[in-house]
Amino acid sequence: MPVTMHASELNADQEDSVFVPLLSPPNSTSQVAIVGSNVCPIESLDYEIFENELFKQDWRSRGKMQIFQYTLMKWLLCFLIGLIVSLVGFCNNLAVENIAGIKFVVTSNMMLESRYGMAFLVFSVSNLILALFASMITAFIAPAAAGSGIPEVKAYLNGVDAPDIFSLRTLVVKIVGSISAVSSSLLVGKAGPMVHTGACIASLLGQGGSKKFGLTWNWLRFFKNDRDRRDLVTCGSAAGIAAAFHAPVGGVLFALEEMASWWRSALLWRSFFTTAVVAIVLRAFIDLCYSGKCGLFGTGGLIMYDVYSETISYDLMDVPAVLALGVIGGLLGSLHNFLLDKVLKIYNLINEKSVAYKICLAWLISIFTSCLLFGLPWLAKCQPCPADTSEACPTIGRSGNYKKFQCPADQFNDLASLIFNTNDDAIRNLFSKGTNDEFQYSSVLIFFVTCFFLSILSYGIVAPAGLFVPVIVTGASYGRFVGMLVGSKSNLNHGLYAVLGAASLLGGSMRMTVSLCVIILELTNNLLLLPLIMVVLLVSKTVADGFNGSIYDLIMKAKGFPYLETHAEPYMRQLSVGDVVRGPLQLFHGIEKVGNIVHVLRTTRHNGFPVIDEPPLSESPILFGDTGGIDASIQFSAGDFAKRGSGNGDKIEDIVLTEEEMEMFIDLHPFTNASPYTVVETMSLAKALMLFREVGLRHLLVIPKLSGRSPVVGILTRHDFMAENILSLHPLLVRSRWKRLRFRFPSLRKLFWGTSGYYLMKH
Amino acid sequence: MPVTMHASELNADQEDSVFVPLLSPPNSTSQVAIVGSNVCPIESLDYEIFENELFKQDWRSRGKMQIFQYTLMKWLLCFLIGLIVSLVGFCNNLAVENIAGIKFVVTSNMMLESRYGMAFLVFSVSNLILALFASMITAFIAPAAAGSGIPEVKAYLNGVDAPDIFSLRTLVVKIVGSISAVSSSLLVGKAGPMVHTGACIASLLGQGGSKKFGLTWNWLRFFKNDRDRRDLVTCGSAAGIAAAFHAPVGGVLFALEEMASWWRSALLWRSFFTTAVVAIVLRAFIDLCYSGKCGLFGTGGLIMYDVYSETISYDLMDVPAVLALGVIGGLLGSLHNFLLDKVLKIYNLINEKSVAYKICLAWLISIFTSCLLFGLPWLAKCQPCPADTSEACPTIGRSGNYKKFQCPADQFNDLASLIFNTNDDAIRNLFSKGTNDEFQYSSVLIFFVTCFFLSILSYGIVAPAGLFVPVIVTGASYGRFVGMLVGSKSNLNHGLYAVLGAASLLGGSMRMTVSLCVIILELTNNLLLLPLIMVVLLVSKTVADGFNGSIYDLIMKAKGFPYLETHAEPYMRQLSVGDVVRGPLQLFHGIEKVGNIVHVLRTTRHNGFPVIDEPPLSESPILFGDTGGIDASIQFSAGDFAKRGSGNGDKIEDIVLTEEEMEMFIDLHPFTNASPYTVVETMSLAKALMLFREVGLRHLLVIPKLSGRSPVVGILTRHDFMAENILSLHPLLVRSRWKRLRFRFPSLRKLFWGTSGYYLMKH
Repeated sequence: MPVTMHASELNADQEDSVFVPLLSPPNSTSQVAIVGSNVCPIESLDYEIFENELFKQDWRSRGKMQIFQYTLMKWLLCFLIGLIVSLVGFCNNLAVENIAGIKFVVTSNMMLESRYGMAFLVFSVSNLILALFASMITAFIAPAAAGSGIPEVKAYLNGVDAPDIFSLRTLVVKIVGSISAVSSSLLVGKAGPMVHTGACIASLLGQGGSKKFGLTWNWLRFFKNDRDRRDLVTCGSAAGIAAAFHAPVGGVLFALEEMASWWRSALLWRSFFTTAVVAIVLRAFIDLCYSGKCGLFGTGGLIMYDVYSETISYDLMDVPAVLALGVIGGLLGSLHNFLLDKVLKIYNLINEKSVAYKICLAWLISIFTSCLLFGLPWLAKCQPCPADTSEACPTIGRSGNYKKFQCPADQFNDLASLIFNTNDDAIRNLFSKGTNDEFQYSSVLIFFVTCFFLSILSYGIVAPAGLFVPVIVTGASYGRFVGMLVGSKSNLNHGLYAVLGAASLLGGSMRMTVSLCVIILELTNNLLLLPLIMVVLLVSKTVADGFNGSIYDLIMKAKGFPYLETHAEPYMRQLSVGDVVRGPLQLFHGIEKVGNIVHVLRTTRHNGFPVIDEPPLSESPILFGDTGGIDASIQFSAGDFAKRGSGNGDKIEDIVLTEEEMEMFIDLHPFTNASPYTVVETMSLAKALMLFREVGLRHLLVIPKLSGRSPVVGILTRHDFMAENILSLHPLLVRSRWKRLRFRFPSLRKLFWGTSGYYLMKH
Repeated sequence: MPVTMHASELNADQEDSVFVPLLSPPNSTSQVAIVGSNVCPIESLDYEIFENELFKQDWRSRGKMQIFQYTLMKWLLCFLIGLIVSLVGFCNNLAVENIAGIKFVVTSNMMLESRYGMAFLVFSVSNLILALFASMITAFIAPAAAGSGIPEVKAYLNGVDAPDIFSLRTLVVKIVGSISAVSSSLLVGKAGPMVHTGACIASLLGQGGSKKFGLTWNWLRFFKNDRDRRDLVTCGSAAGIAAAFHAPVGGVLFALEEMASWWRSALLWRSFFTTAVVAIVLRAFIDLCYSGKCGLFGTGGLIMYDVYSETISYDLMDVPAVLALGVIGGLLGSLHNFLLDKVLKIYNLINEKSVAYKICLAWLISIFTSCLLFGLPWLAKCQPCPADTSEACPTIGRSGNYKKFQCPADQFNDLASLIFNTNDDAIRNLFSKGTNDEFQYSSVLIFFVTCFFLSILSYGIVAPAGLFVPVIVTGASYGRFVGMLVGSKSNLNHGLYAVLGAASLLGGSMRMTVSLCVIILELTNNLLLLPLIMVVLLVSKTVADGFNGSIYDLIMKAKGFPYLETHAEPYMRQLSVGDVVRGPLQLFHGIEKVGNIVHVLRTTRHNGFPVIDEPPLSESPILFGDTGGIDASIQFSAGDFAKRGSGNGDKIEDIVLTEEEMEMFIDLHPFTNASPYTVVETMSLAKALMLFREVGLRHLLVIPKLSGRSPVVGILTRHDFMAENILSLHPLLVRSRWKRLRFRFPSLRKLFWGTSGYYLMKH
């Protein structure tokens, strides 16, 4: 019986058998990934219980006290994650509100004095400075902090260890960059960066508390494995959404539905605890802010669009409008994803060239955005102020609902109220009830088109940029527009249509169901709307799934993360494991010469090696002899084999061995996983995937059906299950009738079949 | 390489090697389970992809049209499940409201005329008749319909195939019995029975549409496997909670957190769709009822306790009270579970004796309940009617808030308003705001104590009986009592304390987090309370987990279901697979004599058999020869091997074979799973459990570490992973330091260690 030996302690950089140089030209297959537009090799994480002698001895030596410490530490870390993430979220909100608020007030005051040129100059220059700052720190300090971060975290939780995504540098740049990017009036969100921030904080706390804070107690070594870190990162991403939207339950469900690949009910509980901490801390801060201690603009920062109304009644008449909202939302959402994917590919070509190009791109987008935001409101007709409003109209000297812009006194510019405002305030305006007459058709339409394209153009620049808020604001304007078209034929007010529109575009773009539903409920505090939101989400997701994947899946694919899906592609049933496994395989013997091992590690960059005992040591070539009497823990402690924090593992090149040591033999048995999971080579790939995915493996040994040959046929890694890899080995399958059916975007003719073809994958 | 042959098509009744007679004396080990107080053998469900030749040919022969039909059919079934469950839920509510309403009005009218004796007679006799009806149909027609049904469904979704729980008889008895049991003023809920009803409907639709409705199209055969049925049953149980509480999102989360053992995001989506259908249909019915078409008492039936208030403010002062609420709720919840477990054991002794004893027990409990409900309100002092109330006081001629009972005019009996009322109305009264002066300390305390013990005594009778509503009503009275004690020191009104109290007792008894949180939010329509509810749930669950398991786990254990947990017990790391696997193993040869097979199937009652090719047929004894050229699909169609509906499989005894046929040989290769999952005998039990549980197996082949012996050491089934089984094989482990630490209830001294010991299991 073959066994694997695991080289993580010696940290070979790659696990696949093909050697890939560190900076190869970008490719979208699965060996490398584009993280922060650098091309990086991809490793898998280790979730398998690695049963070697050392591990077993370590486990047995743990006392009650250590286990108690371990448990307590886990909860303490969850508490800390919740606390720190909510603090960061609060500071983030506060900073954005105040920076953007001051900018808008200064500009508006100049507009009041009719100094329009000066106003534009101040507005665009301050935007430019903020945007450039965000993109420069990202480009120079931490390229992995660019974009939303949700795809990276999602891939990490699937077992893809993209380098550098959880470093301290990335964290700092993500927080600061997100604040300045959002403040610079770019149409980018803060929810995605908050998720990445939360995951980053969790990962740093889980691995590096020891490094930075001098916490070197024994118990910290329990967290030196990927399973514990995975749990913490899941909690961190839940906390991120909870802090961004003030939606604790939504955060847990987001982590569950969108982020996590493996889930246990204990994890549900722990992430619930984390988001509860977030909810309580944020709640305290909100109370603080309502008492006016958060600066001029600090009260509206923690998103909560209260659209409660005592009696929402709707009848059958509203159903067609709501269904139409869902269908169009689905179409728009998939179009959004399609265009974003294309734009990202173009941007990648630009970003590859040099850092200067990256910065230039950010510079262009910022100027373009400023021009649009400042220029478009001139197109709108001024509206007279409503007679009965609790707010001042026009708003002067603060950021508010009724922007005066270029209008005469007692009038306001409705388009400026949407476009010349922070995104939060725009959403609040769109969601507001009792404002059915506030907006003109043309204004909402212009705003919708602007948001739709700006959000697509803005995401790809080299700066932290979320997708949630842009999609919400675009969807809300679209929904409001539909509501205005339906007009008095419906019982629902325009604000509720805006909520439903936001839901439909979110569903069409992100393809979540329960979590989006709960997040929207928590944002709007209106449970009576629930059935309609559910319908809209279902319809829009169904429609959009007929065209392409969720936005995060597209980005993950573009970045080259080898994400392992739960379901097997149909052609995987046609292939057996033996059809994809490749040789030649590098083996070790149970007693192996050190020089050999070093040579193999230096030249191959594999990560797992079968360990075979040949006849001289045992009865027959297929056996693994028993581990003998050496007590390995005398020579090594289990901590030496603990997984290092990301990015600081030892390289084999760093280990200096004398010539004499190279000639010695080492008994690998104590370090060898004596009971790896195995599959027989005739098993279908689909069935092997089930094992690989459900148990969360890094290597899966393939054993022969017939004995007499080598005791092991090969090793499967996650790359062997990737569609690109399989289809390159078996090109005929590309044309098989079993591949996924979906329409390409330009051709809409096969709508019906495309949808069904998709479901086929999910049964 | 050994392979398994699977005898499900010949339906041997049991899989374990020990022969257990069908009606052995009840035991709580894992071979048999008590379903409806009959002792039944337990089978596992088949979730593994069973890769034999027939299956592969069947898969390849499916065309696009069939796959499309399959997909469409799945969604159609989800829609039907949602539709039917919501109809049943609505009828259930309507019937209960009207039957109980008429009963209370008739009784109250007699009380008005001071005919107290007659009122008691009518009240207790009508209760008795309803309770006896419920218990008699349960005892005589479908014993499996007794109790909540949630433990059975939960076990089913874990892979435990308890017989008879999803039959049509059970469904009908569950619905009718639940209506009459709830109407009879027994303190039993309707949520649990609704979950069972939903699961039952889903299972029947998934398996038997063909039988009952003449739907014999080809595509129905796709649902003849356990994976598809599992998905449908999950959707059905989500629909059950959604219909019972009008909580669609809560239903999905309940199915996810409490019910399902395996979960995929596709399933999340499908159950979301199902509960959306429920929400929409119920919403339409509610609108219908508000227009007065549902009988006199039909408007309040669909639970929705709106406790919305514009501004809920709470500060640090409220935190200690809320924490105390959580801690006491946790203690009460675990005490509730402990007592319920004990009472169920006593009841089981009674129920075993004969059906007459069962009915007698129900009879006694009903009379006892009637006496308490009618007698206790006399203890309460009459209260003057409040001056400013929108409701009539006292309520006359309808079921309402201010019960007159024995009081003079213009006064009301506050205890009667709680106790002499339907549970829904009692909860509504307790949750109501602006009623801080309505209840006296003594009344709420008496009500709490009554509910606490009545709910424990009532659950075990032989009738459909849920646990949710009794726990909510008990918790609400406890919370209200705490709120009254805290009084004006708190910013929260007593109604909100009642909500938090209900949350704490639910958390302490059922140990769910996210799903309870969302269910409570959906019940009360108040999102501002969210942080407090989260805290209360976390605290009460943490405290209660230190003492015992969740109520459903206790009931499952008492019933003897071999439920497979996700996490491994610590001692499983100390044992290897070889330590628990038992022989002798029954093998088949690749070409086997029919008579042999029939003999083995008749005598052993195993369910899976390794198929070995011995030297004459192949090179060495460890091989499985290839399957040769016969085209098995000529002789059999895959449908012949499809899993039958529960309870109607063929028995081996039913197959009549001539003497000549018995002497023939059959080639088993085409029917044999040629690539089973295997583990090596030295693998730790914990690691094998991970494979078994995550992939959802029924059999797991154990292969030897050293070759030369038989190619297969044994087969692991779920029973081999049960604690009772392992500890009986290795009694020393019972005293090992690795077993789960928890206090026994009478001794509270090790609180700290007990709690931590529990977490150890969950890391």
